[in-house]
Amino acid sequence: MNANDAVLARLADVIESRRGGDPQTSYVARLLTGPEDALLKKIGEEATEAVLAAKAGGGERLVAECADLWFHCLVALARYGLRPEHVLAELQRRAGTSGIEEKALRKLRDGA
Amino acid sequence: MNANDAVLARLADVIESRRGGDPQTSYVARLLTGPEDALLKKIGEEATEAVLAAKAGGGERLVAECADLWFHCLVALARYGLRPEHVLAELQRRAGTSGIEEKALRKLRDGA
Amino acid sequence: MNANDAVLARLADVIESRRGGDPQTSYVARLLTGPEDALLKKIGEEATEAVLAAKAGGGERLVAECADLWFHCLVALARYGLRPEHVLAELQRRAGTSGIEEKALRKLRDGA
Amino acid sequence: MNANDAVLARLADVIESRRGGDPQTSYVARLLTGPEDALLKKIGEEATEAVLAAKAGGGERLVAECADLWFHCLVALARYGLRPEHVLAELQRRAGTSGIEEKALRKLRDGA
Repeated sequence: MNANDAVLARLADVIESRRGGDPQTSYVARLLTGPEDALLKKIGEEATEAVLAAKAGGGERLVAECADLWFHCLVALARYGLRPEHVLAELQRRAGTSGIEEKALRKLRDGA
Repeated sequence: MNANDAVLARLADVIESRRGGDPQTSYVARLLTGPEDALLKKIGEEATEAVLAAKAGGGERLVAECADLWFHCLVALARYGLRPEHVLAELQRRAGTSGIEEKALRKLRDGA
Repeated sequence: MNANDAVLARLADVIESRRGGDPQTSYVARLLTGPEDALLKKIGEEATEAVLAAKAGGGERLVAECADLWFHCLVALARYGLRPEHVLAELQRRAGTSGIEEKALRKLRDGA
Repeated sequence: MNANDAVLARLADVIESRRGGDPQTSYVARLLTGPEDALLKKIGEEATEAVLAAKAGGGERLVAECADLWFHCLVALARYGLRPEHVLAELQRRAGTSGIEEKALRKLRDGA
């Protein structure tokens, strides 16, 4: 089991542990219990930053922006009583060759 | 080591294996080697869908949209020669209590 | 009064006139009366495309993407019983020198 | 000619007049001459806020967020030497009944 395994689950635990924290001093507590839209706008914002990091050539900046984006997704999942394991299970379900392409075909068929 | 461990790394391997595929039939090959902006616009699109899923109450829809968003992030990372392990290492670096709050303070200080 | 004046108001009228249309054949009728989220995700999508057009150097592509983005904003306004004149009045209110900078200061003060 | 006519053109003039301003004190000067990505991320951010305002029921909040979004589009247009009149001309070109639907059909055909 390498060092990166279960990072998302452990980070979700850290996020969960902030739930009772002071919104004045804890950013995560504020995202978890403050206005829902303050959390959700961060997802749109970090996605745009990831896109801009990619246009700038990827590299460490893209890694950092994906980390920001995934982190705020983890907080959103926690806010709605969900866990990263749920997302990983969904990704695993699609991970077979046919799975990914089936999804692609569905997307194209729907014009989505 | 539970079944969810290393899902992202294995999915990155599947994505990588499509690199030589036919863009006509493989959605992933198309995202990897087609116009860069066609891939990047998916990240903005899936982020908005994740926000809308959250507003709809979270649940399975939020799980599915986070999976879509993370999947397209994995393809973007692959396109720029990066791996999910890089993002997980960055998240782990921040996962200590002080790490997350330090980042929050930095964000607030920068007005970002 | 130049030819561009009132373009937004006239376009809002055209959009309004589609309200009773057949969603099967009218894209605007579908956006106005179909699932709310199908309209809103277009705003996120077109915003990302505007950002990508800017990164590509602006020009006609940026003009076209801003047109797409504003058009879907007009449909959203119509869906909620609003008009572009409301947005223009708000912009006019801010258009004084002090107005724009006051807003900027507010944004910075809020860390938004 | 009503009071709302040409609001966008006049606002573009105000934006243009800030071009030589001090980035330390002028938000618009900062957006025009500072890092390109700092301006572009605002477009993604304001688009998400417009979506959230719509989900909250529209109203004054949606008007204010559309104003924010259009304002930052105007600054982006200015940064690339473009004017709102270019966008309005493009919208006018599409404003005929057939224009809007033709565009819709093109979008569907492209799967975009």
